[in-house]
Parts: sequence; structure tokens; C-alpha cells
Amino acid sequence: MEKNIAVIKGDGIGPEVVSETMKVLDAVGQKYNHQFHYTQILMGGCSIDAYGEPLTDEALAIAKSSDAVLLGSIGGNTSTSPWYKLSPNKRPEAGLLKIRKELGLFANLRPAYLYPELADACPLKEATSAKGFDMIIVRELTGGLYFGERSTKEVNGELVAHDNLIYSESEIRRIAIKAFEIARVRRKKITSVDKANVLDSSRLWRKVVNEVAKDYPDVEVEHMLVDNSAMQLVANPSQFDVVLTENMFGDILSDEASMITGSIGMLSSASLREDKFGLYEPSGGSAPDIAGKNVANPIATILSGAMMLRYSFDLNKEADAIEQAVRDVLKEGYRTVDIYKDGDKKVSTSEMGDLIASRV
Amino acid sequence: MEKNIAVIKGDGIGPEVVSETMKVLDAVGQKYNHQFHYTQILMGGCSIDAYGEPLTDEALAIAKSSDAVLLGSIGGNTSTSPWYKLSPNKRPEAGLLKIRKELGLFANLRPAYLYPELADACPLKEATSAKGFDMIIVRELTGGLYFGERSTKEVNGELVAHDNLIYSESEIRRIAIKAFEIARVRRKKITSVDKANVLDSSRLWRKVVNEVAKDYPDVEVEHMLVDNSAMQLVANPSQFDVVLTENMFGDILSDEASMITGSIGMLSSASLREDKFGLYEPSGGSAPDIAGKNVANPIATILSGAMMLRYSFDLNKEADAIEQAVRDVLKEGYRTVDIYKDGDKKVSTSEMGDLIASRV
Ligand SMILES: CC(C)[C@H](C(=O)O)[C@@H](O)C(=O)O
Ligand SMILES: CC(C)[C@H](C(=O)O)[C@@H](O)C(=O)O
Repeated sequence: MEKNIAVIKGDGIGPEVVSETMKVLDAVGQKYNHQFHYTQILMGGCSIDAYGEPLTDEALAIAKSSDAVLLGSIGGNTSTSPWYKLSPNKRPEAGLLKIRKELGLFANLRPAYLYPELADACPLKEATSAKGFDMIIVRELTGGLYFGERSTKEVNGELVAHDNLIYSESEIRRIAIKAFEIARVRRKKITSVDKANVLDSSRLWRKVVNEVAKDYPDVEVEHMLVDNSAMQLVANPSQFDVVLTENMFGDILSDEASMITGSIGMLSSASLREDKFGLYEPSGGSAPDIAGKNVANPIATILSGAMMLRYSFDLNKEADAIEQAVRDVLKEGYRTVDIYKDGDKKVSTSEMGDLIASRV
Repeated sequence: MEKNIAVIKGDGIGPEVVSETMKVLDAVGQKYNHQFHYTQILMGGCSIDAYGEPLTDEALAIAKSSDAVLLGSIGGNTSTSPWYKLSPNKRPEAGLLKIRKELGLFANLRPAYLYPELADACPLKEATSAKGFDMIIVRELTGGLYFGERSTKEVNGELVAHDNLIYSESEIRRIAIKAFEIARVRRKKITSVDKANVLDSSRLWRKVVNEVAKDYPDVEVEHMLVDNSAMQLVANPSQFDVVLTENMFGDILSDEASMITGSIGMLSSASLREDKFGLYEPSGGSAPDIAGKNVANPIATILSGAMMLRYSFDLNKEADAIEQAVRDVLKEGYRTVDIYKDGDKKVSTSEMGDLIASRV
């Protein structure tokens, strides 16, 4: 199989972790006889430095014509980097929002899984981490407060700012269908998160989710308020299988869920549209403080590469091989510094990439 | 001193926990020679049952003319209670939103404190709970998505729902000032939470907070994105002193913060306006499943009563007496079932009230 992958190394630790992922993908290509062609494009701070904007139309066109996008991370230190002196629509994050919207990536999947080997790193007490948990947050990614109309205007002598939280039935329906399809091949439970006791958009959300649920009688559905969900993630994470929610709530809850695993450097994510196309990136940020030091954990990005093989290219066996290689390397005791503890074998970013590539 | 208190027992465990609080307030009144006059009004489900609406204008008028409001809890089981078959503006929660707005209670203070005696109940691992934490969430309560214009309309053959997130400079300024005043008498640190990399309202929020900060050079200010805040609460709660945020983020983060204490039945809250007037209520919900069984923990409500004495009536010594009585009773090993573990002395709601009243 031949595939064209648009590669966005991005800022911070992005270049390092993406390079290791390409190494692992090439190992897969060699073993299973596929050719992955990479076209690198700029996005985020590096694009601002080169072109004065976080995502050029040329780069966007390359991403659009590819079979999938692999992303490292974008952005810098918001208090010290000159990128954050620019107007909001010129900052690194604007590139990310633009590519999500322009590529129609409405479904963001963020697995939060407690690796048994890394249960020590879990910030929750042992009684909870011993039970383990394995959930996937399905976050709507191209609607809501992120893409509604916004403005800041003077009204009666003072500034008034507003952001519009807006959802249509069809936007809710397509992400709900995605969540139900995923639940069907997992533990068949959906927790749909909203604030239906206050918001009209949440009441519409709940109505549409209930309608879609009728087509999936085998999947159990519960509705949970967002404030309660933030509590339940800490109190009892093993209750969750698929968590379905809108854009802003998903931003908050997926980060909370990734933190309770204690190993955010291990968590991949996929942003998909209705067909097979997708953008794949680690859940963590650009970590500018450790960039260029060959210490970042590349596993989240490597696993995002595995998700790309599975969801965009239907290469399940190949994705399995990467995931198995990661498990093997962990079992053998190799750890980057973020997940290292006494007695483990400490390795660098590139050593971790080599190890995983060699186990594929 | 003579004070008129409007009392809303409300639904679920509300009546039980409020009765114990009145018992404790009366003990304070007797000891320190004050008279508290209570006028009971209905709000929530019990008001729906009696009058067909969650808060009548008569009840609201009584609350308005009182010196402070003491609230138990409102609402029932959202899946089984008939109250939730009513239109949104007739449900129990609508009463709560109406009283907040009509009384101008823009500042919601929710302390989240790890009681050393109850550190076992903390859901975080021991390395974290051993450090302890003591923060107060200052949540804007009468603006944002909760009170912006909202609608659900048919557009091009499908329903579209929207909620408007709107803030003016003056709304942000008054809550920021409240937070800085509180920080000044605490550990002098404010974490202002927003989503300034996406929302106009958050960028205005950050701008106004920075302006107010100039008047408080003794208070350290940091800005944190809401997604990162949801992570930091779990990873490292002891970093927080005063957390300042808008209405919806505050709803989510204050519940997350209360859960990481592990003892939500111990957490009080106050909703204030610019003058001394306020509404005081426990942080937890109405817990319909345990209502009427004399097992609920009344301490959160009793401590809310202490906050009322302190913030609305300037009775600091009397508030201290209640807080000390609670500490004493805990030290003596008395526990309601929610915080009970082997070896403790298990007591009922009313026994806990009696114990605290007798120690005042
Ligand atoms: C960088 C930011 C705009 C983005 C978001 O809020 O979606 C990030 O937090 C994420 O979750 O991918
Ligand atoms: C009941 C609900 C409307 C309310 C809110 O969201 O403000 C509650 O969750 C709270 O935090 O007091």
C-alpha cells in the first residue's frame, strides 16, 4: 500500500517525537511492504516565524490532498514567547483551529487508559488505580464556543465580549453516531455529558443523543452533567467507557482524564471526519521547557501513528504491531524520564524510538 | 444583635441539614446573646408541588427583605422525578438561578479544604494528600453562559440551539476585586482561570484581571487555561490559594475541587453581592436517595451558617466558635456515615447537630 502523509512537526518537542514516529512507521512499512510518503508542512509558531501566519493556505492545501496528517505539537510559552504578542488569529493555536475546521475534523477521539505497568504514576489512590480504567473521550471538535461568532465591543462606555455556543441537530447527530459506533466495538456504554439543566444547546444535545440511541439498542446510554462528570472522573474513573461531549466540555474533561492516567506522554489522539481521513497527534502539549533535549516521551505520538494506520488506512495488523511493540518495550523496563522510577532503564527520546522500531 | 434570616430548607436532605444548622445558630445566639429570626420560604421542588413554580415572587420578596438567606438544597432525581417533566424554566434549578440573579449574588465562594482528620477519604494518592491543600474558588455567578440570551430555533429544516457567553468589563471587575480582597487575607495568590487562547470573553477577562491586579501589588497573579486547571487540580492541588473564574468554568472546577477533598459533605459555600448580604448553602446536592433517613452530613450546612455569621453579620468570634466546635467533634471521632471509617463513632444527622451545638 502507498500512502501520502502530511507531517507537521510543529513547535517545542514536536520535531523530536514526530521523527521517532516516522522511524517506527518506516519499520512497519518495511516489514509489511507499504510505502509511506511524507510531505512536511509548517504550522504554529514555526510557521509564524517563516511566513508570519500560523498556517498558510499552501500548507493547508497539502494537508487536504494527503491521506492523513501526523502532528507533533504547536505553541510555546504563552507568557514569554513573542508569538503571544500577536493578535489572537495570528497565534500558533489559530493554525490548529483553522486546520480542524478546514479539514472538517469534527470527531476528536482521546483514549485515557491506565497502563498497568505505569499504575504507580496515577495520581489517584491505589484503591482506584488498582481497578484500572479504560475510556475514550469523543469530543465534538468543529462547533460550539470554538467556532461560534464572537466579538468585543464598546457598549455604554465599557467593553463587552461575547462568544456564541451554537450547535445544530446535524452537528450533534454525526458526532453521536461516531460515539455509538465506537461504543459498539468496546464495552457498549456511552456517557453523554452536558449541562442540560442550564443550556439550550445541552438540551438539544440530549434530545439528539437519545434519538440516535434508538438505532443502537445494544449500547447503554446515560446522561451526566458536566460538573458531576468532573467529579466522577476523579472518584470512579472505571465507570466510563465512551464519554461523548461537546467541544469545550470535551477540552476540559479530556485533559482531566489524561491527567488521572498519570502518563500523559503515553496518550494518543485522533481527529476524524466522516470518511477515513484524519489528523493524529499526541494528547500532551509542546513542552517548550524540555524541547531539543532528547528527553521527551515519543510514545504518545508513536501510538497516534498506530491510530492513523488503523482508522485512516485500515492497517489493523500493522497498528497492532506498533501497540504490541510499545507494550513489549514497557515490559522490558525501558522508560523515558517522565515515566521513569527507580529500577527502570532510563532511555532518551531517540533510544525509545529505536527500541520500538526494532520490536515492530 | 437581631437578624432576620430567610430559610430555604428545599428538597432532599435539605430540611434535615438546615434544621441542624438552625439548632447550632440558636446555640450561638444563646451564648453570645443574639436573636436570629427565621422566616421559612419554599424554593425548588417543594415550591413546584405547592405553587406550580420553583420560586414565587412572594418568597423572593421575603428573601430580599431579609439580612441573609440560608439554603439547604434543591432538586431531585432528574430521571425519575416528575419535576423534570416540566419545561426548563419551571424546574427546581430555575428557582436557584432566579434567586441568584434577582438578589444580585454575583460572587460565589467555595472553599475546598482537605481536613487532616479526613485525609483518608481523599481520592488522591497519599503523597498528594499528605501535603494537604486549602483553596477557595471564587466563581462569577450571575453572568456568562448561565444568563446570556439563549434560543432553540428551526433553521433550514433542523433545530439549532445557542447560548450566549457574555461578560462586560464591570462584571469582571467586581468579581476580580472580590477575589483580590479575599487573597489579601489568605496566602496572597490568585490563579485566574480562562480559555484566552480561544474565547473573546476570556481575553477580556484576562485584561480586566490584570488591570485590577495593579491595585493589589501584594497579591501574586497567574493565568491558567481551564483545561490545564482541570489537570492541575488533580496533579498538584496545594499550588492553589484563590482560584478566580467565570460562571461555567467555576461550576466545573469547584465541583472537581470539592471532590478531591473526598468529603463534599463538609464543604460550605457563600454567594454574595457587593454589600454584606449573602446566600449560604452546602456545596453538595440534595441527595434524594438518602433524604429523610437522618443520615446526611449536616456539617457543610452548619459551616455555611458560620460563613453567614462571618460575612453577612460580622460576627467573627461566633463563626470561629462554630468552626472550632466542628473541629472538636471531628477530633473526638464523631462521623456521619459519608465520612465514617472503622474505629470512628458513627452518628446520625441530628446527633451530629446536637454534638456541634453543645460544643459551641
Ligand atoms: C490549543 C487549544 C486551542 C486546544 C483546544 O482547546 O482545543 C488544545 O487545548 C486541545 O485540546 O487540543
Ligand atoms: C443546579 C445548577 C444549576 C447549579 C449550577 O450549575 O450553578 C449547581 O450545579 C451549582 O453549582 O450550584
